[in-house]
Amino acid sequence: MYKELFSDDVGSFFRSPVREIFKKVDLNSIYSFAGGYPSAETFPLESIRQTMSEVIDKYGGKAFQYGATQGVMELREAVAERYSVPVDRVQITSSSQQGIDVCARVLVNPGDVILTSSPSYLGALQSFCSYRAEIVGVPHCDDIEKYKDAYVAAIAKAETSGSKVKFLYMIPDFQNPSGESLTLEERKMLVGLAEEYGFLIVEDSPYRELRYEGEHIPTMYSLAPDRVIHLGSFSKIFAPGFRLGWAIAHPDILDKIYVCKQSLDLCPPIFDQYVAAEFLKSGRLDENLAKSVTLYKGKRDLLLSLLEEYMPQGVSWTHPQGGLFLFLTMPEGFDAVAFYDKALSAGVAYVAGEFFHPDRSGKNTMRLNFSFMSPEKIIAGIKLLAELLADGLGLE
Amino acid sequence: MYKELFSDDVGSFFRSPVREIFKKVDLNSIYSFAGGYPSAETFPLESIRQTMSEVIDKYGGKAFQYGATQGVMELREAVAERYSVPVDRVQITSSSQQGIDVCARVLVNPGDVILTSSPSYLGALQSFCSYRAEIVGVPHCDDIEKYKDAYVAAIAKAETSGSKVKFLYMIPDFQNPSGESLTLEERKMLVGLAEEYGFLIVEDSPYRELRYEGEHIPTMYSLAPDRVIHLGSFSKIFAPGFRLGWAIAHPDILDKIYVCKQSLDLCPPIFDQYVAAEFLKSGRLDENLAKSVTLYKGKRDLLLSLLEEYMPQGVSWTHPQGGLFLFLTMPEGFDAVAFYDKALSAGVAYVAGEFFHPDRSGKNTMRLNFSFMSPEKIIAGIKLLAELLADGLGLE
Repeated sequence: MYKELFSDDVGSFFRSPVREIFKKVDLNSIYSFAGGYPSAETFPLESIRQTMSEVIDKYGGKAFQYGATQGVMELREAVAERYSVPVDRVQITSSSQQGIDVCARVLVNPGDVILTSSPSYLGALQSFCSYRAEIVGVPHCDDIEKYKDAYVAAIAKAETSGSKVKFLYMIPDFQNPSGESLTLEERKMLVGLAEEYGFLIVEDSPYRELRYEGEHIPTMYSLAPDRVIHLGSFSKIFAPGFRLGWAIAHPDILDKIYVCKQSLDLCPPIFDQYVAAEFLKSGRLDENLAKSVTLYKGKRDLLLSLLEEYMPQGVSWTHPQGGLFLFLTMPEGFDAVAFYDKALSAGVAYVAGEFFHPDRSGKNTMRLNFSFMSPEKIIAGIKLLAELLADGLGLE
Repeated sequence: MYKELFSDDVGSFFRSPVREIFKKVDLNSIYSFAGGYPSAETFPLESIRQTMSEVIDKYGGKAFQYGATQGVMELREAVAERYSVPVDRVQITSSSQQGIDVCARVLVNPGDVILTSSPSYLGALQSFCSYRAEIVGVPHCDDIEKYKDAYVAAIAKAETSGSKVKFLYMIPDFQNPSGESLTLEERKMLVGLAEEYGFLIVEDSPYRELRYEGEHIPTMYSLAPDRVIHLGSFSKIFAPGFRLGWAIAHPDILDKIYVCKQSLDLCPPIFDQYVAAEFLKSGRLDENLAKSVTLYKGKRDLLLSLLEEYMPQGVSWTHPQGGLFLFLTMPEGFDAVAFYDKALSAGVAYVAGEFFHPDRSGKNTMRLNFSFMSPEKIIAGIKLLAELLADGLGLE
């Protein structure tokens, strides 16, 4: 009945298979490696309760009034200080998903090219598709010359076909879904390409502070502050329920995002921003983050040792130094989408890897999350999944 | 430096003059009739503090986790019950501004026609412009036949030029900026046109429950539930700082909004939704709303009597039965934009009426808000404004 009334963009919308899973099953009733959920035990409830009460005392009605579109100054300042950037380069976003989406909105016309890793974050692919961008995924390659060549070829192909490369979307630290990070050399190479060919880089950085081993690698933003839009999020270092993130970028870019955001939602949630600002400034966030890092490191170590012990021959996986995910590769011919119903009815959920590949390759891969479940459930879940895979391999 | 990278939409963005005012002046340091801010004294701080604590006790970590894109079920159910609609027709939005914007996103291609009243809500005009819609404003006319003819002519003109009318955007109750409401007959007429010509109606209803006299008039949604998208907001009946609203519509329309919202921001703020749900279900919201209605009625009455007493000859104004605004009309030739700097430097702010007119007519009009300031400031502010106007009229 409404078909002829919908916009052309609607034809390019696609549903998140992850969110569709969540509509169908109660995550707590199964072994779920599917979501990107933090563990609820990392949310410091009593500390939040106290901070909320302090915010009401300190700000009164102001905490529940309309606020500035750029975000409340207290939070912008706290973010600017934490990441050593000028405050006029900080825009608070109503979730880091909004950060991604608004970048696409202000940069992309239908047909424009967005470069990204393959696999890449599903929510970003959804957003880019919804603006009818042409998404070109470039698989990672350990040989940096070949890796560079692959990007150069993708850029050349876009130029030949008359399309414009607007930006490269990257999660350089503990990528979703693979869990892998870019080396400093790779970051420099990609920033160099952006400079050379005149496109921007959207650096999505929700997991950066969840590092369990090794040294921090400089952000792409720090390598080229006028070429990179850096996106951050409170979801993994504090709590996703606040729906708060930030964008750090050149003021000329932020200005467009600011005007766009006026008509998107006027301003981010005010009270939540004051709570996040108090958490940052008081050191409570860092205190809590340290606990999360310890907890997640334990879960990652557990998952790696379980995979080693239980997975059948022919299955390999990434070894993330941080973040929430690792990526499993089954032998060629395995179909993780086809296998999914069997797994779910046995009581274990994952996300099939092909959903993260712009060209829908990677059919023999899956993403496993290790932050959400308790160690007991991780153990039982991996045993079950390994059993099902041993059973299913070669039979699908 | 970035110019060639921005999307075509960016060329149609325009800044909210209201938000620009707020960037320049501290609202509390002047007499501000400019914003659409509720009075901070209507925010029930102690009741909010208590409810927040209850939500933490009741939901624990769930209140800070990711949640369903449609909104948390408790809030959807509370909204569905309050407005007597099925819960599958309720989508929670991250502010009612997002409700407006997402309607444009899923319905409008560049060049499509959106019909609206003239004047109309500025934030809606911003959003519609940003999608490069052709906005056609139709002034109100007390003669319903002529009023209908004006709409029919606008539709015919769109059709002749090959454009498609996608929807009519209306605030039928205590409109922003005029404060006026549509009669039942007018609502029926407009719904009839939508049925006849096959477009939708976006009924924006943030002020409906702030009625100070007279009887409620049926919503346009109630007249044609499959033809109307009804948008509601917690901003004026609870507090804007939560950034929560809702859309009520046919499930086929909500489904597109739902998928779009996945990539816009995944889900509305979770904790805030639980707080709003508890407020609704416990009756605290209605209790508080009743106090707001009494407070605002007093302020409206005060403003009307002050205008009567102090405004110079040749100035007229609307008599709203509810809401937050009334609209002032000065003699032809007066320019409220040009007058604005003088008023602001004397210490009084308003919003020039032309910003609300899609064709930038209405140069001799201005919007006055009466909810935000204390009675003392309303009195001093109107005396000052009346003096300035008496001074300025005929001199501009």
